[in-house]
Amino acid sequence: MNKVGEYTYVTEAYSLDFRGRVMIPTLGNYLLHAATRHATGRGFGYSDMNQKQTTWVLSRLALQMEGYPLLDEPIRIYTWIDEVSRLFTERCFEITASDGKTLGYARSIWAAIDTESRRAAPLDETALKEYLTDRPCPIARPGKIRPVEGETEGVVYRVKYSDLDVNGHLNSIKYMEHILDLFDLETFRTKEISRFEIAYQAEGRYGMDLSLHLKELQENQYDAAICNEGKSICRASIIWRPSVS
Amino acid sequence: MNKVGEYTYVTEAYSLDFRGRVMIPTLGNYLLHAATRHATGRGFGYSDMNQKQTTWVLSRLALQMEGYPLLDEPIRIYTWIDEVSRLFTERCFEITASDGKTLGYARSIWAAIDTESRRAAPLDETALKEYLTDRPCPIARPGKIRPVEGETEGVVYRVKYSDLDVNGHLNSIKYMEHILDLFDLETFRTKEISRFEIAYQAEGRYGMDLSLHLKELQENQYDAAICNEGKSICRASIIWRPSVS
Repeated sequence: MNKVGEYTYVTEAYSLDFRGRVMIPTLGNYLLHAATRHATGRGFGYSDMNQKQTTWVLSRLALQMEGYPLLDEPIRIYTWIDEVSRLFTERCFEITASDGKTLGYARSIWAAIDTESRRAAPLDETALKEYLTDRPCPIARPGKIRPVEGETEGVVYRVKYSDLDVNGHLNSIKYMEHILDLFDLETFRTKEISRFEIAYQAEGRYGMDLSLHLKELQENQYDAAICNEGKSICRASIIWRPSVS
Repeated sequence: MNKVGEYTYVTEAYSLDFRGRVMIPTLGNYLLHAATRHATGRGFGYSDMNQKQTTWVLSRLALQMEGYPLLDEPIRIYTWIDEVSRLFTERCFEITASDGKTLGYARSIWAAIDTESRRAAPLDETALKEYLTDRPCPIARPGKIRPVEGETEGVVYRVKYSDLDVNGHLNSIKYMEHILDLFDLETFRTKEISRFEIAYQAEGRYGMDLSLHLKELQENQYDAAICNEGKSICRASIIWRPSVS
């Protein structure tokens, strides 16, 4: 098995936003899909984890895009393991267009949890380290995102059936959607996302009343938080740039 | 080109609901994906339509499931054209498990609209009819769904960025999600959807305040409506059965 996994996705009309761009949550889906395929093919996928009564948990994801794929354009996602420690592993991604041009990079940090106790579980470092490579991923690591919930009024959202993942918790992709929905249409009309970073802190559950917070730090730079009963369960940081097209 | 298109999808952990089943909206996504691939490969895909200043519009979809795919199970979707008239074409689907067993069938009705006037446009009957087959699709055609908005209190929902498709309208899949979200978790816990039918009547737009209606007609049988300013833009009909697993 190659250390780097390589997977092709084709952007379809119905997965584009109203500007004809692949949406960040859809890209996030492709990344999770590629990560799953890479891990499954190498003995540390969800089924392998389940056998040890553990599962993967996405802790952080940073996605930095230079350009966005167009309609019907096949994109290629390369994914590989960049770092392994006792409790965390860092997985990188490169997204390229059909002509080989890089569209963006992503970095993700994953942990394992025990499916019963929901507590952190040690990773199989030996198995994971076999696939370590030093392929470059030239974007900043996910970092600290400052709290903004105290300084902004929240938008209320109640977690619904379609928000839930297989564990009965708010789906990682849905956190992204709810955060992006805080921006007005004019922002999407005139700008594009240069960097999107998200930190998952706690599990959202069915019926939970969330409050969604967004604060502009300076032009084109925003921090966001999703809170439940005053405590954040997710933070995000979004950097926009004027739209090129 | 074969008249019947055949496409494989693999259900991934993150696309399952909390019961470990592929969600109806995800299945809907697979169907639209298969339809797009079938049409694109045969000269009447979205790009072909765009050249004539037209686009496809999904008018109705009925999906009837005998069973649901399991995690990591490749499913196969067969799709073909069942009927063609001046303004509508009917496309059928069969969904099978990896062992060839039928999981379900679907029927969809499509129209073309002019992208400028948003009015119905005639179909290229000759091109479409070349691919007509009499392969059986043994489920009832999408039918009339009676209005329930007058008899039920609506749940308010405002259309957001992540709801929008490439035309800037409420995405066909999101209609399904918003309707399913009207059921409580207990229903999903104890039952499964036997038939899901949806009729798209008008376009939902950004910022629109929708009211979502659901009425139990008899045990396990519900009709739903999505309205804007008292006028329905979508109707649906959902039949449940006790969950087998």
